[in-house]
Amino acid sequence: VSAHPRLSLNQATIKYADLSTALTVTRDAGIPGIGLWREPVAEAGLGTAAKLLAESGLRFSSLCRAGFFTAANPALRRTALDENRRAIEETATLAAAGAPGSASVLVLVPGGLPEGDRDLPGARARVRDAVGALVDDAAAAGVVLAIEPMHPIYAADRGVISTLRQALDIAEPFPATTVGVLLDTFHIWWDPQLDEQIVRAGRDGRIAGYQVCDWITPLPDPLLGRGMMGDGHIDFSAITRAVLATGYQGDIEVEIFNQDVWDADPAEIARRTVRAFDACVAPSVPAHEPLPAPAASNGG
Amino acid sequence: VSAHPRLSLNQATIKYADLSTALTVTRDAGIPGIGLWREPVAEAGLGTAAKLLAESGLRFSSLCRAGFFTAANPALRRTALDENRRAIEETATLAAAGAPGSASVLVLVPGGLPEGDRDLPGARARVRDAVGALVDDAAAAGVVLAIEPMHPIYAADRGVISTLRQALDIAEPFPATTVGVLLDTFHIWWDPQLDEQIVRAGRDGRIAGYQVCDWITPLPDPLLGRGMMGDGHIDFSAITRAVLATGYQGDIEVEIFNQDVWDADPAEIARRTVRAFDACVAPSVPAHEPLPAPAASNGG
Repeated sequence: VSAHPRLSLNQATIKYADLSTALTVTRDAGIPGIGLWREPVAEAGLGTAAKLLAESGLRFSSLCRAGFFTAANPALRRTALDENRRAIEETATLAAAGAPGSASVLVLVPGGLPEGDRDLPGARARVRDAVGALVDDAAAAGVVLAIEPMHPIYAADRGVISTLRQALDIAEPFPATTVGVLLDTFHIWWDPQLDEQIVRAGRDGRIAGYQVCDWITPLPDPLLGRGMMGDGHIDFSAITRAVLATGYQGDIEVEIFNQDVWDADPAEIARRTVRAFDACVAPSVPAHEPLPAPAASNGG
Repeated sequence: VSAHPRLSLNQATIKYADLSTALTVTRDAGIPGIGLWREPVAEAGLGTAAKLLAESGLRFSSLCRAGFFTAANPALRRTALDENRRAIEETATLAAAGAPGSASVLVLVPGGLPEGDRDLPGARARVRDAVGALVDDAAAAGVVLAIEPMHPIYAADRGVISTLRQALDIAEPFPATTVGVLLDTFHIWWDPQLDEQIVRAGRDGRIAGYQVCDWITPLPDPLLGRGMMGDGHIDFSAITRAVLATGYQGDIEVEIFNQDVWDADPAEIARRTVRAFDACVAPSVPAHEPLPAPAASNGG
């Protein structure tokens, strides 16, 4: 069994698998990389998680997720920053445990409007300030903070940063080695300024990660209505070519929030992910310069 | 009973009322304007609809909706253009029948991606071409074509024009007396470039209509999850002030697609609309230069 050499399975796609199972089904499907989530890592314990990851021989492509910076209450914002600092440390630990080619990337979900608060510019300013407050910690840990612009469907309750341009504007004052952006097709595919902003992101060295996931209609659910590539309306060829044309060398993660996907057998979902990636994304990935193949498993 | 002098009730808010009922409950709630939909107008017959509108003494603020320009098949696109030409004539007829201060505005819903088609730039180009094909007809009829940028949640299946900037870019080559934009808070509230594009739209004389409707969470349904002002997250004060600061002199329509609203008594919804408008929108509307009050009803 083998999968595309740039493919990484984001753990959220097989949400109900514990860490050990997630690593096993990813590896067994021939997928060379994995993106992890903090909750299952915490459940295993960070040390154990790092050990399991190292034993899997998989590359580590990102840790999801920190962020949630928009609380109006200063004490809650300080709590969020502390939580983000822990996530930065976790990211560094996991990146060191992953196979060669692992990325030390922490995905930042901006956060939504506080309850009863309608000040969108204010919430956006707090995201900017929080990123600034974390830059030194991230730099010290060798971690890249990846700001994730989110589909405007989430502007109220999850992510007030709505476009790639806006995420890049926030990142711009900071070193590209420490603050980048996370591109997720589900969130950005509709954007009329997408092409020019992908070029800008690449030129500035800001593309910290690239995730693929389809937009299906009728949208079954705002949160859990994301589709496997090919099941919806997104032109993965055009977006993937644009991202890779910038010279982006990292993994391409598949991250799908979908109740039907979650309810299926994780091993089957991993195999289905390989097939959908081969059909919809791989043809647009240049064959040269593949990332290193995963190391042989040393047990576990 | 009286309502704010700039308020217009879009008929979609009381979708299940026939035209005669819609006019009556609007008038009885003291609302001076109404935005009509083609289907109930056709049901009454255009001549009868115009007569009923004239008798109501209400201003006419817009006709919804034409557009749907994105078919890949040229024959289907020609059919759509013919349908739009009929809608242009209907708009002119209704605007002439409305009270002084009526607007001859036809709202254009761009249309989504054709079945199985993932070429979003191609679909957007077809919208641009269709608007160009209709300009002479609209100008001859004295009708303003109002391109409605739609929330990106609809980019796949309803409206491929996703931002105010994109709608203005399409309008720009054409005279502002004939091609404008329709601003609906539900569709545009999240846009990081909203303020600058509202200024641009006003400067260029492109604001053909302004609709208000709230964004509620959790979003109950992508289409029918729109909320009454005050029930959601939109800052009506900020957006209304921005729109009116451009010098926009037209009506402000309330248009709400919501099953619970539709299931309620239309007269009660009209009264609720007046109260929500007074609470959330009216305080941001300058008191000077009101539009003419509706003429006294002359029966019907």
